[in-house]
Amino acid sequence: MTGTLYGLGIGPGDPDLITLKALKILQSTKVLAYPTLEEGDSLARSIVAPHLTGERTEIPIRIPMTVDRKPAQDAYDVAAEELKKHLEQGQDVSVLCEGDPFFYGSFMYLFGRIAEEYPVEVIPGVSSLTACATALQAPLSARNDILTVLPAPLETSILRSRIEAADSVAIMKVGRHFDRVRTLIEEMQLMDKAQYIERATLENQKILALADVPANAAPYFSMILIHKRGQAWK
Amino acid sequence: MTGTLYGLGIGPGDPDLITLKALKILQSTKVLAYPTLEEGDSLARSIVAPHLTGERTEIPIRIPMTVDRKPAQDAYDVAAEELKKHLEQGQDVSVLCEGDPFFYGSFMYLFGRIAEEYPVEVIPGVSSLTACATALQAPLSARNDILTVLPAPLETSILRSRIEAADSVAIMKVGRHFDRVRTLIEEMQLMDKAQYIERATLENQKILALADVPANAAPYFSMILIHKRGQAWK
Repeated sequence: MTGTLYGLGIGPGDPDLITLKALKILQSTKVLAYPTLEEGDSLARSIVAPHLTGERTEIPIRIPMTVDRKPAQDAYDVAAEELKKHLEQGQDVSVLCEGDPFFYGSFMYLFGRIAEEYPVEVIPGVSSLTACATALQAPLSARNDILTVLPAPLETSILRSRIEAADSVAIMKVGRHFDRVRTLIEEMQLMDKAQYIERATLENQKILALADVPANAAPYFSMILIHKRGQAWK
Repeated sequence: MTGTLYGLGIGPGDPDLITLKALKILQSTKVLAYPTLEEGDSLARSIVAPHLTGERTEIPIRIPMTVDRKPAQDAYDVAAEELKKHLEQGQDVSVLCEGDPFFYGSFMYLFGRIAEEYPVEVIPGVSSLTACATALQAPLSARNDILTVLPAPLETSILRSRIEAADSVAIMKVGRHFDRVRTLIEEMQLMDKAQYIERATLENQKILALADVPANAAPYFSMILIHKRGQAWK
């Protein structure tokens, strides 16, 4: 009997935004893997820390954050082989995934390397998308709204045409692209329809008017929501 | 002291996909409201039924499902007034919301009627969007994918242009629009990139090839996911 790989969506940051289902699996598996930067602590592990009980084997997966994708892909190759050893021995393995594993999550790289050989179960989680909307007290999408999710690294011309074609827009992974994206939103005269939030539901969550965000200061976990229809729910 | 209105995201259907945060609030509030059809039981209430303990006041909000929006808006007016009476008396009120309250959720109609007068706290939930992706074992969006969410009632020409402009597409509220949407996907030669799912994570969840879905048989809670890049995570 081989083990099962669990991709656990642990939600956007508040430890209580984990689901009962993910919590039960987290507390019953003896091998726990999680992504982490090459240096420093793992955000994913810190989110579930209040829920960890008993002993377990921990496997930090250190992923280089480089523009060249090769080093990261190599790191996933190595991590997948390590996880497979545990699965082969019949041990279940939980992998922590911030937000939802299949919503712009790095879990898919492990999924792609393991799912054809071993059983994989993915537990959906609360994504940053809806966490940001609730933190901003602004419904994300209503009725027949078209909602488009755009990663900020896309070219400005693509961002522009997709924002034009949507009613509701979430721009993710803003980080170092913030200044360029804000300039675009100004040019499109949408500043009064846009909201900025970083680290939603974490203790250091911050909500700012777009005009008040300092240049070059947005972290990777920041998002801009645009509601072109305004407050359509009223 | 007035009470607080809680909009609780209870997730897509599996009772264990509720968050710890929503569960704690659910179990501590003494007034519980939930949407229901004019006849029959409330799906939202049935999802949380395993978690209900003790006594509480229950307020079913019966919403007419008509094309004309006026009867539903009138029903929300009446419901909001009833909820305000409890808030005015200092009682906290939980409103159950399938999926996430701010992701195409009807909670926004209560929010719009109450949030300016009384404290409202919204708890995000696992949305059907990611629940469907995990049930289908197919990552929703990766890296710099553009993800577009389209309500099926939109005109065919709009659906076509938005599908053309996205990498990953979720078509929601398919229901009685299924045949028209399937014909469009056939015309766009995307049948082999599309997946169909209904009632994700509920006991009667069903996954079918698009070609195998009987005509005029899709329920309201059905979704089509299209991954134009194919399995980009491999």
